[in-house]
Amino acid sequence: MAANRVLVIHGCNLNLLGEREPHIYGPSTLAEIDAQIEALAGELGLEIRTLQSNHEGAIMDAIHENRQWADGIIINPAGFTTTSVGLLDALKAVGLPAVEVHLSNVHTREEFRRQSVVALGTIGQIAGFGPESYLLALRALASRLRGKDPA
Amino acid sequence: MAANRVLVIHGCNLNLLGEREPHIYGPSTLAEIDAQIEALAGELGLEIRTLQSNHEGAIMDAIHENRQWADGIIINPAGFTTTSVGLLDALKAVGLPAVEVHLSNVHTREEFRRQSVVALGTIGQIAGFGPESYLLALRALASRLRGKDPA
Amino acid sequence: MAANRVLVIHGCNLNLLGEREPHIYGPSTLAEIDAQIEALAGELGLEIRTLQSNHEGAIMDAIHENRQWADGIIINPAGFTTTSVGLLDALKAVGLPAVEVHLSNVHTREEFRRQSVVALGTIGQIAGFGPESYLLALRALASRLRGKDPA
Amino acid sequence: MAANRVLVIHGCNLNLLGEREPHIYGPSTLAEIDAQIEALAGELGLEIRTLQSNHEGAIMDAIHENRQWADGIIINPAGFTTTSVGLLDALKAVGLPAVEVHLSNVHTREEFRRQSVVALGTIGQIAGFGPESYLLALRALASRLRGKDPA
Amino acid sequence: MAANRVLVIHGCNLNLLGEREPHIYGPSTLAEIDAQIEALAGELGLEIRTLQSNHEGAIMDAIHENRQWADGIIINPAGFTTTSVGLLDALKAVGLPAVEVHLSNVHTREEFRRQSVVALGTIGQIAGFGPESYLLALRALASRLRGKDPA
Amino acid sequence: MAANRVLVIHGCNLNLLGEREPHIYGPSTLAEIDAQIEALAGELGLEIRTLQSNHEGAIMDAIHENRQWADGIIINPAGFTTTSVGLLDALKAVGLPAVEVHLSNVHTREEFRRQSVVALGTIGQIAGFGPESYLLALRALASRLRGKDPA
Amino acid sequence: MAANRVLVIHGCNLNLLGEREPHIYGPSTLAEIDAQIEALAGELGLEIRTLQSNHEGAIMDAIHENRQWADGIIINPAGFTTTSVGLLDALKAVGLPAVEVHLSNVHTREEFRRQSVVALGTIGQIAGFGPESYLLALRALASRLRGKDPA
Amino acid sequence: MAANRVLVIHGCNLNLLGEREPHIYGPSTLAEIDAQIEALAGELGLEIRTLQSNHEGAIMDAIHENRQWADGIIINPAGFTTTSVGLLDALKAVGLPAVEVHLSNVHTREEFRRQSVVALGTIGQIAGFGPESYLLALRALASRLRGKDPA
Amino acid sequence: MAANRVLVIHGCNLNLLGEREPHIYGPSTLAEIDAQIEALAGELGLEIRTLQSNHEGAIMDAIHENRQWADGIIINPAGFTTTSVGLLDALKAVGLPAVEVHLSNVHTREEFRRQSVVALGTIGQIAGFGPESYLLALRALASRLRGKDPA
Amino acid sequence: MAANRVLVIHGCNLNLLGEREPHIYGPSTLAEIDAQIEALAGELGLEIRTLQSNHEGAIMDAIHENRQWADGIIINPAGFTTTSVGLLDALKAVGLPAVEVHLSNVHTREEFRRQSVVALGTIGQIAGFGPESYLLALRALASRLRGKDPA
Amino acid sequence: MAANRVLVIHGCNLNLLGEREPHIYGPSTLAEIDAQIEALAGELGLEIRTLQSNHEGAIMDAIHENRQWADGIIINPAGFTTTSVGLLDALKAVGLPAVEVHLSNVHTREEFRRQSVVALGTIGQIAGFGPESYLLALRALASRLRGKDPA
Amino acid sequence: MAANRVLVIHGCNLNLLGEREPHIYGPSTLAEIDAQIEALAGELGLEIRTLQSNHEGAIMDAIHENRQWADGIIINPAGFTTTSVGLLDALKAVGLPAVEVHLSNVHTREEFRRQSVVALGTIGQIAGFGPESYLLALRALASRLRGKDPA
Repeated sequence: MAANRVLVIHGCNLNLLGEREPHIYGPSTLAEIDAQIEALAGELGLEIRTLQSNHEGAIMDAIHENRQWADGIIINPAGFTTTSVGLLDALKAVGLPAVEVHLSNVHTREEFRRQSVVALGTIGQIAGFGPESYLLALRALASRLRGKDPA
Repeated sequence: MAANRVLVIHGCNLNLLGEREPHIYGPSTLAEIDAQIEALAGELGLEIRTLQSNHEGAIMDAIHENRQWADGIIINPAGFTTTSVGLLDALKAVGLPAVEVHLSNVHTREEFRRQSVVALGTIGQIAGFGPESYLLALRALASRLRGKDPA
Repeated sequence: MAANRVLVIHGCNLNLLGEREPHIYGPSTLAEIDAQIEALAGELGLEIRTLQSNHEGAIMDAIHENRQWADGIIINPAGFTTTSVGLLDALKAVGLPAVEVHLSNVHTREEFRRQSVVALGTIGQIAGFGPESYLLALRALASRLRGKDPA
Repeated sequence: MAANRVLVIHGCNLNLLGEREPHIYGPSTLAEIDAQIEALAGELGLEIRTLQSNHEGAIMDAIHENRQWADGIIINPAGFTTTSVGLLDALKAVGLPAVEVHLSNVHTREEFRRQSVVALGTIGQIAGFGPESYLLALRALASRLRGKDPA
Repeated sequence: MAANRVLVIHGCNLNLLGEREPHIYGPSTLAEIDAQIEALAGELGLEIRTLQSNHEGAIMDAIHENRQWADGIIINPAGFTTTSVGLLDALKAVGLPAVEVHLSNVHTREEFRRQSVVALGTIGQIAGFGPESYLLALRALASRLRGKDPA
Repeated sequence: MAANRVLVIHGCNLNLLGEREPHIYGPSTLAEIDAQIEALAGELGLEIRTLQSNHEGAIMDAIHENRQWADGIIINPAGFTTTSVGLLDALKAVGLPAVEVHLSNVHTREEFRRQSVVALGTIGQIAGFGPESYLLALRALASRLRGKDPA
Repeated sequence: MAANRVLVIHGCNLNLLGEREPHIYGPSTLAEIDAQIEALAGELGLEIRTLQSNHEGAIMDAIHENRQWADGIIINPAGFTTTSVGLLDALKAVGLPAVEVHLSNVHTREEFRRQSVVALGTIGQIAGFGPESYLLALRALASRLRGKDPA
Repeated sequence: MAANRVLVIHGCNLNLLGEREPHIYGPSTLAEIDAQIEALAGELGLEIRTLQSNHEGAIMDAIHENRQWADGIIINPAGFTTTSVGLLDALKAVGLPAVEVHLSNVHTREEFRRQSVVALGTIGQIAGFGPESYLLALRALASRLRGKDPA
Repeated sequence: MAANRVLVIHGCNLNLLGEREPHIYGPSTLAEIDAQIEALAGELGLEIRTLQSNHEGAIMDAIHENRQWADGIIINPAGFTTTSVGLLDALKAVGLPAVEVHLSNVHTREEFRRQSVVALGTIGQIAGFGPESYLLALRALASRLRGKDPA
Repeated sequence: MAANRVLVIHGCNLNLLGEREPHIYGPSTLAEIDAQIEALAGELGLEIRTLQSNHEGAIMDAIHENRQWADGIIINPAGFTTTSVGLLDALKAVGLPAVEVHLSNVHTREEFRRQSVVALGTIGQIAGFGPESYLLALRALASRLRGKDPA
Repeated sequence: MAANRVLVIHGCNLNLLGEREPHIYGPSTLAEIDAQIEALAGELGLEIRTLQSNHEGAIMDAIHENRQWADGIIINPAGFTTTSVGLLDALKAVGLPAVEVHLSNVHTREEFRRQSVVALGTIGQIAGFGPESYLLALRALASRLRGKDPA
Repeated sequence: MAANRVLVIHGCNLNLLGEREPHIYGPSTLAEIDAQIEALAGELGLEIRTLQSNHEGAIMDAIHENRQWADGIIINPAGFTTTSVGLLDALKAVGLPAVEVHLSNVHTREEFRRQSVVALGTIGQIAGFGPESYLLALRALASRLRGKDPA
C-alpha cells in the first residue's frame, strides 16, 4: 500500500522562527521544525511536502496544485488565520482533511487572534504546543488517514 | 525518577459518549476512551487519574484535591467551556500545566461554543479529533513535563 | 398499551415558590404545583416523575438516569436557562422530546432572561402562565407522544 | 353568566398553512386549525372570532374594533413578530390579556426570529407545537379569564 | 397670496387616543386634537388635511397623493417610527418639508423607540408635549413656509 | 410548450419613479420601465404580470394569489427590503424562484439599507443598474426557467 | 399671580452662533436669539434668565443656583448632549420641568450625536428648527406651567 | 435584643486562598479571613455562619436554608459573579439585604469579570481591599441592620 | 467607433470551478465560463481580457495595468470580497465603472460573506446566478458603456 | 509619626445631597456627611481635606495640587464616573492609592452608570451604602496606609 | 509678510509631565516642551501662544478667543480626546487648520483611547513620539500655512 | 559613525499616486514623493531604501530581508492597514522601530479605515499631511535613532 501524503503549510512570518519573539514562538528554526516533522513522518510512514510563504495567494496556489498529490493537509495559517476567506475557500475547494496548527495558544492572546476563519475548512485545531503542535497534527492526520476517523 | 502524574477530567454529559449524538461525538464509550488513555499513558510512562462529572463544583473540587498529586491536567470542559469562570480560576489557582480537549471541532460549530473561557487557564487546546484528542493531549503534556517546553 | 412517562424538572430556586417574589411567580407552592401536575397527568394517562434541584449537575444526572424510563421531558430551567450549555447538551444527548416551561413571561423581563440556550434542545416553549404553564406543557407533550406530532 | 369572548388573530402568510413549508409549519390548513379552535372553544365555553390578514394595519384595525367585544386575544404575529411596534402598541392600547402563539419553536430558528417585540404586550407565549399551540393558548386564556390569573 | 397647506398624518393606534394608556399619551381624543390643530391653523392662516391610518401603505399613498396639494407635512409615525424605511422614502420622494411629532418623549422610553428612521426624511422633531407637540409643529412649519427657514 | 410566466413586483414608493430623487433612482417612470420589461419579456417568450403597491400586505396577497399562475418572481422590495420577514416568508411559502432587484447599489448606501431580509427567500440579487436591473433579472429568471439552473 | 420664570441655558460653542458653520446652525447670533426669546417671553408673560457657558460645571452650578428661582428650564446641551451624566443628574436633582433644544436636527446627523443622555432628565425635545427651536420650547414650557400638562 | 445574624458565603476556589495567585488575592488563608470576620462580628455584636463551596447549587441551598436564621448576607460570588442567574434569583427569593464582596478590584480586571449579575440582588458592592473587603461588608451590614439604612 | 473593452477578473479559488463544491458553485469550469463570456462579448461588440489569480496583489496590479486599455471592469472578488480594502482602493483609483459578480447568492450564506467592502468601488452587484452572473454583468456594463447610464 | 492625610472628593451634583432624589441618594446633606467623615477620621488618626465641585477640571486641579500633601484619595466621581478619562489620568498621574465611592449601588442602575472608567485608577470600589460608603472607604484607606495592603 | 501664528493647546493632566507615568509620557516637563516648541517656531518663522488647562470649557474659550489671532491650532486633547464633542465643535466652529497630537501611540493602548472624536475637526494626527510629536505637528502646520497643502 | 538606514514601504495602490483620487491623496506622484524623501534623508544623514508593492506577501518578504540592513522602518500600509495581521507580525518579528504613515487623515474617513491593526507593531502614527506625512515620519525616526527616544 502506498504511503499517505501530507502537505504541510507554514503561513506568513514563520520563516523567521527562532529569531522572532522567541518568548512567544519558541527557539526552534523552521528548518529544525521541518526536520522534526520529516522524522516523525518517516516513523508514521507518511510522505511529506512542506511549504512556507508570506503570500496568501501562493498558499492557495500550493493547495490547488497538490490537491491530487496530497491525502491531507496541515496548515499553520499564522497571520492569515482570522481574515483569509481565500484560504478557507481553498481548503473547502480541494476537500481534503486539514488540520489547523498554531504554535502559541491563540485562545489566550489578543481578541483579534481568537476566531479562526480558516477553521471552517478543517477537521480540527491544535494550538499552544510550539513545534510539537505540528507533530501532534501529523499524528492526528495519520490516524485519520488510516481510517480511524474521529469525526 | 518517579512517573509524571496526569489528572484527566471529562466534563458534563461525556458519560453518555457512544450513545449521545454519535455523528458529532463518535461511537466510543467513555470507558473505551479511558482505556485508550490508560494504554498510551503506560507507553509514555505516565500515571493517570480520570474523572467524569456533570457537576462543575465537583470538577473544581477534584482539581483542588489533586493539586499536590498531579503534575499536569487534561480537561475537556464540555458544556462548561464557554461560561465557567470557576473552572478557569481553579486551573489558575493550582498553577499546573493544563491542556484543553474537545472531541468535536468547536470552532466550526455554533457561535456560542467557540470562545473558551477555560482556555485562559491552559497552555494549549486540541479540538476535533474525537477520542484521539485526548491521546494527542497526553503526548503534548508528556513532552511538556519531560522538559521540552513548547511555550 | 403502557402509559407514556414524563420527567418533570424544576430548576433552581423553584423550591421556594409561593414564598419567593409572589408578584412575579405566583402564590402556589411547588408541592401544590406538583399535585396539579399529578392530577392532570392522571387524566391524560401519563406517568410522572418530578424533580427539583438547585444543582445544574444533579439535573443533568437526572436527565441521564431517566433516559430509558422517560418518553418525554418537561423542564423549567429557571436560573440556568440562558447560560447552561450543559443542560442543552444533556437534552440533546438523550434525544427525548422536551418542553421548556417558564412561570413568568421571560420575553418581557430583563434582557438577560430572554434568549434561552436550553431552547435549542427542546421542541417548544411555554412562558408566562404561572403553574398553568406546566399543565399546558403536559398537554402538549401528551399530544406529541400520542403521535400527533406538531413539528 | 355570559361566555367569555376571544379574538384569534393569524398574522401574515398563515392563510397558506398546509401548503407552506410543511416540514416547518405542519400539514394542517388554516381552516382545519380554525375548526379545532372552534371545537375546543365550545368545550371551554368560549365565544370565538378569527381573523387572518397579511396586512399589519388590518390586524391593528381588528384589535381596535373588537376591544369592546373581546375579553382576550390570541395572536400569532408571524412575520410581524420581531419588528411590529404597531401591533405591540395596539395590544397595549386595548389592554386585554393577550397570548402570543407560534407554530414553530422560534427560539431555535434564525437569530432574527427570536426576540419578539409583540411579546411586550402579552401575558405569555406558546411556541413550537404546531396547531396545538393555538389550543394551548385557548386553554391558558380560558383559565385566566375564569379568574385563575397566573401572573 | 394663497394659504399654505399642511398635511397632518397620525400614524397607527392614534385613533385610540384618550382611551389608550392615558398616563403615557394623555386624555385628549384624536378628534379633540384635530380640532385644536384646525383652530391654530386658522389663526396661522394655514389650510389643513388630516389623516389617521394604521396602514403604513395607506400613509405612503396619502403622502404621494397630496404631494401637489401640500406645502408641508406633519407626521407622527407612531409605531412605524423606528422601522419604516418606506415612510422615510416616501417623505424623501415628495421632497416637502416635514416635521416629526411624538406625543411622549420617546428619548426616555424603551431603547427600541429611540432612533427614528423616519427622521432622516424630516427637518425637525418635536417629542414629549402631548397634543401640544402637534401645535408646536404647526408653528414651526408655518414659520418655515413663510420663509423663515431655520435650517 | 406554454410560455413561462413571471410576476414582477415593485415595492413601495416606486410608483413615483422619474419624479423621486432622480439622482439616485434615475429619470424613467414606472410605466416606462414596465414597457421595457414587457418588450424584453416578449423577446424572451415570457408572460408577465406587474404590480406596484405601497402595502406590504398587498404584496404578500399578490404573491399568494399568483402562486399557481407564476413560474417565477422578480421583486424590488424597496423600503420593505431590510425589515419584512413577512415578504421573506411569503416567498418561501410559495417556493418559486425569485430574483431580488434594486435600482441603486444598496451596498454602497446607508448601513441600514444593506442587509436584505428578503434575500433569504431568493435565488439571487441584482442591484445598481437602474431600470436595467429588472431586465437583467428577467434574463436571469428566463435562463433559470429554461432549465439552465445556475445554483 | 406672579409670572412663571424660565432659565434658558445655551451649552458649549453656542456663543459663536452666526459665525460658526452657518449652513448647519443658521445666521443668527446668540444675542439676536436671546432677544427673540425675550420678546416671546414678554408676550407669554414669562420672566427669563439666559446663560451661555462652555463649562459643563458652570451649567450645573447655574441649574443648582436657580433651582428656587426658576419654574422651568430650557436647555440646549450642545456638545454635552450625548455624554454628560452630570447635566442629566443636575436636571433630575432640581426636579424642574426641562425642555431639550437643538438648533439642528440631530437625528439626521452623525451617529454619535443622536442619543441624548440629557434627555432622561427632560419632559420633551425640540430639534431642527434653528433659533425657532427655542421659541417653540418656550411655548411648550409656558403651556406646561399654565397647568396644561401634556404628559 | 437578640444579636443580628449574618450568613457569610465564600464562592468557588476561595478555599485555596493564601495559596492561589497571591499577587492578586493576597496571602491570607480562608481560615485566617474567617477568624478576622469572627473577631469583628464579635465586636459588632453579630452572630456569624460562614460557608465555602465550589458548588453553585450548594450555595443556593445554603441561602434557602438560612433564610429564617439570617438577617443579612455577605457573598463573594467569585467565579459565579458574572453568569449566575441562579444566585441572583436565590438572593431575590429570600429577600434579605445582601452585600457583594470581591477581594480584587474586578472593575480593573478582564472585561468578562466586570458586570456582576449577582449585583442585581444586592444592596451594595465592595471590591478591591482583599480580606478587608469582608470586614467592610460586615460593618456596612451591621449599620444597615441597626436601622441606619443607606438606601 | 472602437469596441468598448472590458477587463474580467476572477478572484481566488475560481480556477477550481467545476471541481470545487459544485453544489454551491455549479458544474462549469472557468474555461467554459470564459468561453461563454467571450461569446456574449462578441455578440455585444465588446473586447475582453480575462484574468484569474489567487493573489490579491496580482489583481491590483492588473487593474492598474489595464486602466488605460479598459473601459469597464467585471470583478468576482471571491474570497477577497469582504476584507480587501486594497481591491476597493484599486477600483476607486482607476475610476472605471465596475460590476461586482458572485456565483452564489452571498446574501443567503454565512454572515461573514455578506457585506462586501469591494462594493464601495462598484456601480452594481449581481449575485446568485452561477456563470450567468458574469453574462448579466457583461450586459449591464455594455448598456452602461453605450451611454445608457442606470445610475 | 505624622498622621496620614486623605483628600476626599465629592463629584458633581453632590452639593445638593439631602435635597436631590432622596429615595436614591438618602436624606443626609453633604455637610452632615463631611462631619461624619471628619469624626471617623479623628478616630482613625487621619487628617482630612474635602472638596466638592461640579467642574471636572477643578477636580483634576485639586488632585494635582494635593499630590504632595495627600497620602491617599477618596473620590465619588458621580456624573463623571463613566466618561472621564481626565480623572482617570489624574489619579494615575499622582500615583496615590485611591478608593472609588458611590452612594447608590450603580451596578443595579441604568446600563450607562455601570462601567466606571475612573475605576482603572483606583485600588477598590465601594458602592450602595449611602454616606456609609465614605466611612467604609476611609477605613479601607486607613488600613492600606497603615501597611496592611490588601492588594 | 507677517509671521503665521499658532495656538498650541495642552489638554488635561499635561501640566504634570515629567512627573506623571514617565514610562508612558517621557521625562520632559511641560515647560521644557514649550521651550522646544518656541525654539522650533522661531526657526520656522512662526509666532506661538501656548495654553494648558484641565478644564474642557477653558480650552473651548481659548479656541474661541484666539480665532482671529491664530492661523492654525495644535491640540493635544489628552483625556478629552475620545468623548469631547465640545472640543470637536469648537474646532469646527473656528474653522482653522488643526493638528491633533498625542505623546504616546494611542492606537496601541486601551481600546477606549483609540477613536478620537476630536479628530473629526482636524487635518491630521501625530501620535507616539513624545514631545517630538509637537515639533512634528509644528512642521506640518508650517508647511500647510505656507501653502503647501497636503490635503 | 555609519549613517542610519531606513526602509520606506509604500503599500498597495500607492504606485498610482498623483493619478488616483487627487482630492484625497494629493497631486504628487510616488516618484516625486520618493525624491522628497531622498532629499530630506540626505539632509538628515540617513540612508534610504524604498519599496512599493501591491502584494502583502512581498512587503513581508522585504521587511524580513532588510531586517539586518535597516535601523528603522517607515510604512504606509494603505489598504492593508486594518486587516493585515501578517504585516503586524512581520514588524514585531524584526523588532525594528517603525512609524506608520497615512496620506489622508484616516481618523475622519469611513469607520472601517480607522483602527489600524498594523499600529500594534509601530512606535507612532502620522496621518493626514499628504506626502509631508513621510517627511515628518523620517524626522521622527531620525530623532529616535539618534537616541532621542520619545517613548
